[in-house]
Amino acid sequence: MTHTDTAGVSGIYDRRESAARSYCRNFPTEFVKAKNATMTDASGRDYIDFLAGCSSLNYGHNDADMQKALVDYITADGVTHGLDMHTNAKTAFLEAFETHILKPRGMDHKIMMTGPTGTNAVEAAMKLARKVTGRHNIIAFTNGFHGMTLGALGATGNAGKRGGAGMPIPGVTHLPYEGAFGADVDTLAQIEMMLDNPSSGIDAPAAFMLEPVQGEGGLNAASAEWIKGIAALAKRHGALLILDDIQSGIGRTGTFFSFEEMGVVPDLIPLAKSLSGMGLPFAALLIRPEYDVWKPAEHNGTFRGNNHAFITARVAIEKFWADDTLQNAVKEKAKVLNQRLVEIASAVPGATLKGRGMMQGVDVGSGETASAICATCFEHGLIIETSGAHDEVVKILAPLTIPMEQLKAGLDILETATRAHAPKHKIAAE
Amino acid sequence: MTHTDTAGVSGIYDRRESAARSYCRNFPTEFVKAKNATMTDASGRDYIDFLAGCSSLNYGHNDADMQKALVDYITADGVTHGLDMHTNAKTAFLEAFETHILKPRGMDHKIMMTGPTGTNAVEAAMKLARKVTGRHNIIAFTNGFHGMTLGALGATGNAGKRGGAGMPIPGVTHLPYEGAFGADVDTLAQIEMMLDNPSSGIDAPAAFMLEPVQGEGGLNAASAEWIKGIAALAKRHGALLILDDIQSGIGRTGTFFSFEEMGVVPDLIPLAKSLSGMGLPFAALLIRPEYDVWKPAEHNGTFRGNNHAFITARVAIEKFWADDTLQNAVKEKAKVLNQRLVEIASAVPGATLKGRGMMQGVDVGSGETASAICATCFEHGLIIETSGAHDEVVKILAPLTIPMEQLKAGLDILETATRAHAPKHKIAAE
Amino acid sequence: MTHTDTAGVSGIYDRRESAARSYCRNFPTEFVKAKNATMTDASGRDYIDFLAGCSSLNYGHNDADMQKALVDYITADGVTHGLDMHTNAKTAFLEAFETHILKPRGMDHKIMMTGPTGTNAVEAAMKLARKVTGRHNIIAFTNGFHGMTLGALGATGNAGKRGGAGMPIPGVTHLPYEGAFGADVDTLAQIEMMLDNPSSGIDAPAAFMLEPVQGEGGLNAASAEWIKGIAALAKRHGALLILDDIQSGIGRTGTFFSFEEMGVVPDLIPLAKSLSGMGLPFAALLIRPEYDVWKPAEHNGTFRGNNHAFITARVAIEKFWADDTLQNAVKEKAKVLNQRLVEIASAVPGATLKGRGMMQGVDVGSGETASAICATCFEHGLIIETSGAHDEVVKILAPLTIPMEQLKAGLDILETATRAHAPKHKIAAE
Amino acid sequence: MTHTDTAGVSGIYDRRESAARSYCRNFPTEFVKAKNATMTDASGRDYIDFLAGCSSLNYGHNDADMQKALVDYITADGVTHGLDMHTNAKTAFLEAFETHILKPRGMDHKIMMTGPTGTNAVEAAMKLARKVTGRHNIIAFTNGFHGMTLGALGATGNAGKRGGAGMPIPGVTHLPYEGAFGADVDTLAQIEMMLDNPSSGIDAPAAFMLEPVQGEGGLNAASAEWIKGIAALAKRHGALLILDDIQSGIGRTGTFFSFEEMGVVPDLIPLAKSLSGMGLPFAALLIRPEYDVWKPAEHNGTFRGNNHAFITARVAIEKFWADDTLQNAVKEKAKVLNQRLVEIASAVPGATLKGRGMMQGVDVGSGETASAICATCFEHGLIIETSGAHDEVVKILAPLTIPMEQLKAGLDILETATRAHAPKHKIAAE
Repeated sequence: MTHTDTAGVSGIYDRRESAARSYCRNFPTEFVKAKNATMTDASGRDYIDFLAGCSSLNYGHNDADMQKALVDYITADGVTHGLDMHTNAKTAFLEAFETHILKPRGMDHKIMMTGPTGTNAVEAAMKLARKVTGRHNIIAFTNGFHGMTLGALGATGNAGKRGGAGMPIPGVTHLPYEGAFGADVDTLAQIEMMLDNPSSGIDAPAAFMLEPVQGEGGLNAASAEWIKGIAALAKRHGALLILDDIQSGIGRTGTFFSFEEMGVVPDLIPLAKSLSGMGLPFAALLIRPEYDVWKPAEHNGTFRGNNHAFITARVAIEKFWADDTLQNAVKEKAKVLNQRLVEIASAVPGATLKGRGMMQGVDVGSGETASAICATCFEHGLIIETSGAHDEVVKILAPLTIPMEQLKAGLDILETATRAHAPKHKIAAE
Repeated sequence: MTHTDTAGVSGIYDRRESAARSYCRNFPTEFVKAKNATMTDASGRDYIDFLAGCSSLNYGHNDADMQKALVDYITADGVTHGLDMHTNAKTAFLEAFETHILKPRGMDHKIMMTGPTGTNAVEAAMKLARKVTGRHNIIAFTNGFHGMTLGALGATGNAGKRGGAGMPIPGVTHLPYEGAFGADVDTLAQIEMMLDNPSSGIDAPAAFMLEPVQGEGGLNAASAEWIKGIAALAKRHGALLILDDIQSGIGRTGTFFSFEEMGVVPDLIPLAKSLSGMGLPFAALLIRPEYDVWKPAEHNGTFRGNNHAFITARVAIEKFWADDTLQNAVKEKAKVLNQRLVEIASAVPGATLKGRGMMQGVDVGSGETASAICATCFEHGLIIETSGAHDEVVKILAPLTIPMEQLKAGLDILETATRAHAPKHKIAAE
Repeated sequence: MTHTDTAGVSGIYDRRESAARSYCRNFPTEFVKAKNATMTDASGRDYIDFLAGCSSLNYGHNDADMQKALVDYITADGVTHGLDMHTNAKTAFLEAFETHILKPRGMDHKIMMTGPTGTNAVEAAMKLARKVTGRHNIIAFTNGFHGMTLGALGATGNAGKRGGAGMPIPGVTHLPYEGAFGADVDTLAQIEMMLDNPSSGIDAPAAFMLEPVQGEGGLNAASAEWIKGIAALAKRHGALLILDDIQSGIGRTGTFFSFEEMGVVPDLIPLAKSLSGMGLPFAALLIRPEYDVWKPAEHNGTFRGNNHAFITARVAIEKFWADDTLQNAVKEKAKVLNQRLVEIASAVPGATLKGRGMMQGVDVGSGETASAICATCFEHGLIIETSGAHDEVVKILAPLTIPMEQLKAGLDILETATRAHAPKHKIAAE
Repeated sequence: MTHTDTAGVSGIYDRRESAARSYCRNFPTEFVKAKNATMTDASGRDYIDFLAGCSSLNYGHNDADMQKALVDYITADGVTHGLDMHTNAKTAFLEAFETHILKPRGMDHKIMMTGPTGTNAVEAAMKLARKVTGRHNIIAFTNGFHGMTLGALGATGNAGKRGGAGMPIPGVTHLPYEGAFGADVDTLAQIEMMLDNPSSGIDAPAAFMLEPVQGEGGLNAASAEWIKGIAALAKRHGALLILDDIQSGIGRTGTFFSFEEMGVVPDLIPLAKSLSGMGLPFAALLIRPEYDVWKPAEHNGTFRGNNHAFITARVAIEKFWADDTLQNAVKEKAKVLNQRLVEIASAVPGATLKGRGMMQGVDVGSGETASAICATCFEHGLIIETSGAHDEVVKILAPLTIPMEQLKAGLDILETATRAHAPKHKIAAE
């Protein structure tokens, strides 16, 4: 294999890749290897990965068991692409998912293999909610991010991304997430008033769709009370509850689903990112059986049912979810993470902690500060990104499997960079 | 790995997979191996594959060179998931694509890594056309299929699929494809009249989007004249030309792009299906450089840039497109295919041939007949599917790499099944 | 009452009236009186009126019987505004409409008082068709004009007008009217193929909506066969038939409804323009009783039920539709009109006759020629306007009650102006 | 003129008028005469009118001066219908409007003659805001009512009315009006946060559109501070301010415009209802000159420019707005109204006063109570209606010109009816 010696920024990318490319601009090097929480570039330099494919690599890069199972499957001429035909890879995945994920949690959801992207699982959820209810209106929330295809984009809050549509996107109402107006304002009560007012202009909802922790929106973590309130409101108004666990699920907050200790059972659950375990494209929609009213192929897609992903996803489930070892380790690391972030935040006047579990960060008050911190981190060997409406949150999404020492090492780099860029005084709200 | 002995129809799928599943209903067995044009089920039975992942496996299942390169990459801890960061796998793919695909064809398109599904590449194309022109209206065509997410679904003709949206999808006008009203009606002239009439109700177009051969729509193959006419019309009206080569591209019709002997250069070209070479999820949008006006991340996605797919796609390009061996072989097989289909069609009163290259089929006059033929084929070891608005076309999408003898063996099965189900008299149009 | 001496173009209008004003630009004078087919300006000059409020004055200006009845009603303190409460004026109108219009034609339609504008009656029709069928798609036609509010605008073909919406207007499909592709192309057969093809991209129709003669669209008059074909197609597809008789109805083509000799009974019939008889704002929607599924006030409006209009409309019905005197006179005048237009058209190479009844005109091949002709007519005392997608049709909409001599005098002016501006050679299609 | 003796409910209406009819159901008699605040039915019974055509008859029924001017105009063969051509009636109206309305208030707005319905003026405003800004999103408010045609309906809050559209209506966001969440919640601050948050999902606004007092929505009267806040927010976000004064304007709150003492000058002002003075269909849109970017006829309509309405509107302006007699009288009556409503409200546990000026009412806690009160009023000779999301507000919209004694007599009837139906205990919020 040939490659450019001058990493990334040079030649072929400028010449041939669309201007839409983005992460490579902040991390201008060419990566050639990756293992658990370490990425290595063409010059041999190692980086600690606190981005983890935006939570697509909860089990780290290239888990050895997944690698082995996948190599064995390929070597044995296992079916790589089979549309949605039955394969032994798929059978085994479904059985593992049933045994280790659904059954222990008392869930009887159906699994829909959507196209292998989060946005496709979200589109399927939106279509299904509309079909089930005969209504069009999906209630989405401020700072929500659900994807970039037209339907999902309608439910995404970001103005820059929405602008890409080039036209108004019908069928979605955006209401304030918990805390959107500050800690003092009970947005749930207001949403309830809006929904109960027959002259509010809010059309009868097909579904409420939200992320239990908003990954792109600034690591806003809704409380169990608030989500239960939304669930109750949805039920009362004949709407489905869609909890988009694409970024917050698969162990990221400490449990497989981010909501499982909240006392709610969503009707529809889009999953993607870390579902395959190894970062392979894979997405699914979990559907309460009574709402699985699809006709065959009513929503389909060429790559639904990525067999390679079935292999690695099965290994991930059997390895990490058959007992509570991972969960306990995540709790331990989350505690450390939280303690260190408290210290780090204290270096920035007005900074606040965001998120929960291994999905935490620091709101440093401005996008400029946050970007400067991340850039300095990269210079010192740490891959880390911002989040939030103004990119004002420095976001830690380290692999759940990161060794404790490496986690601390990364946090050391972050602390130094934060202190270097911390403004002297609190920055006024943008 | 465990698996169900009783293939497919049993247990876990009924219990757990959503009712949306489809192909597995027509091919009720569990596949465990696949090589080139042969799939093998759990009972050890071999099937000839005339479906090839709906043209996602143009180079057959599990090409040995791709397998080897991919296993080597995995074993070396190559980056599996890196968002859209630079990797050696990506660099090499881009260089191969530039060297063997773009340059020889005199094309200077940019490559946009969209989410790894065809529908995502189409959504990106539609958004970009709207952004470039400041207009919303995409002209799509009867019997077109472009995907299932809301934007692409708007451009898809199929009523059952469109119904899944649960609401009107704005921003698309559907006009008649070549031949939509029979061979005698010049739809190009009519489209021109509609576009030139300022009171036609057709809003100024952002783009014309069409498949050079309509895969799902019944293997309708537009002529070079017609497509050139559409290209000229698009130019005159300030609209972009989007040729969706997701199913018809990557060699399926005999050349890499299905349109390359037509004298048109599309502004935007969505690619997917066989792009990865081995059936891995992968999609891209080719963009004329002057229209690459994306802001960074204006359209993004977690799995854009599937590194495993970069590896196999590079091998595919270097192996099959550095010289004309494959193209010559395809021409040879397409000729045989055509001759045999003429014979087969002659068994069915009123049947007609559809498509071109290795994307041909027979319109047998009704969906019932076509389905019965395909079901009998499967009983005799041939995987084959229908296509068309009424599922009335038996469609052959064998791997381009299928050995001639196996191609003929498959066609023998098809011929027998067709003769068994051929109606005595011509069926009236549905 | 004060007024500006310098008619129209001066002072107050430039200073205060919005740039949206239009007709006053072509007829730059201030009118102060009008009787039957004559308008008189502030300087005392008389004009023959071949525009008649765009067919809102089919009985001419200020019919003496209507004037008297209206003055009596006002003088007696009759209810001017009563929302949709019962009044003696409304009762009498409804009884007259039932007796002289509905019963003799064997129609049992309900009468809905919509807001007093044609566009409001059209909006009501579109909403009702969607409610009755549970579908959203209204099939409208090339060159159709149905109004300027968002719903009706969606069904209007004119690009300039549609552009005013500032966004895509969902829920309408525009298909070719009879003759849209020339006399040789059977658009009905094509529409049928589009509707019968489940992959055409045309969503199942709630209604087909069309004008039997397209007033703004160029006086295109559909044949009985074509309209019957559309009616049959609507029925077969479970869609309603809406015949918009706003401009073509109320005697304009020789019968009260323009379609009554065609053998079709529309499900919904929007009426406006000449319905009040004297040019007062008034509109209604006729609804087959089985489709009158409105809930009270589900569509409402402050000025529905204009009592002054009820008074004049009743007089108009009783005076003109109790016997066939008017109809016979219209036939006579239409014949003369047609004969003269044949002569006039012969002066313009390539010119063609358009329309039927007292709704005829000449396509002179270009908007420039047509505008020049109309401007010259105005200089010589004739008010006349253009029509058509390119404003290429000189349109005669004289009051039905115009004296024969005045009709001929107007046509003399038109003939002279046409000869003055007739191009020497046929103009190529724009 | 014939009429039914048995008023209203009988024969012809059941037989012929659409089920959409509404007010006639609550006031089941046939009216034959009306003068100022008195309506008289066919049996000779008089009713006090506290509905006044939903504020279309601010100067009462059949003002003698308007009657005379109109009869004179008709008798003189004044132009009744002239599209938007200049007439002496129009000239005089424009001059009076400029002299007595615009100039004294320091306004230089252009006047656009829209179709003669409020909804048409609103549609024109929405289209123009979109055109001026190149954006699609209109911010409307809870409990707002702006009309029933598709565009205006999108901005109307009422679910029942919205449902009539039969599909999602794009391009409008509904946000909470002042007080929507109770007196303690500062909705302005929240709206500001939503607009300032680039990830709120609220697209950049073309305009903010609201009624200074919500007529249909329950007589909610926004404060000057709140409206000034919205005006400032609109300016900061590059959006237009549309104050819909259709029901609240033309003196209803004590000044010609309802906002003129608030220190804001709206960019666009839709007017209708009482604009003609006598209840004739008439609407207009006032446009700040810099935003009057219409092309000729870009928004048009047959009945724009109702000459009869020009006559009566001019008389109304000259008679009532040349000095402050009317305004002083309104203030006086509003005071009396307020005092009496305080008493009346005290009879109902939990009742609250709503509105301002001559647009006040009592929220009696439930639609059942309010309807019962209004029905009893009608039995005792008072025409009065409900308002509000749950029809829970008894609304007084007496003519501004009602004699003080008659106002008091009407309030006596209302008080008696209210006491008769007052619940013993406060009703819990619906």
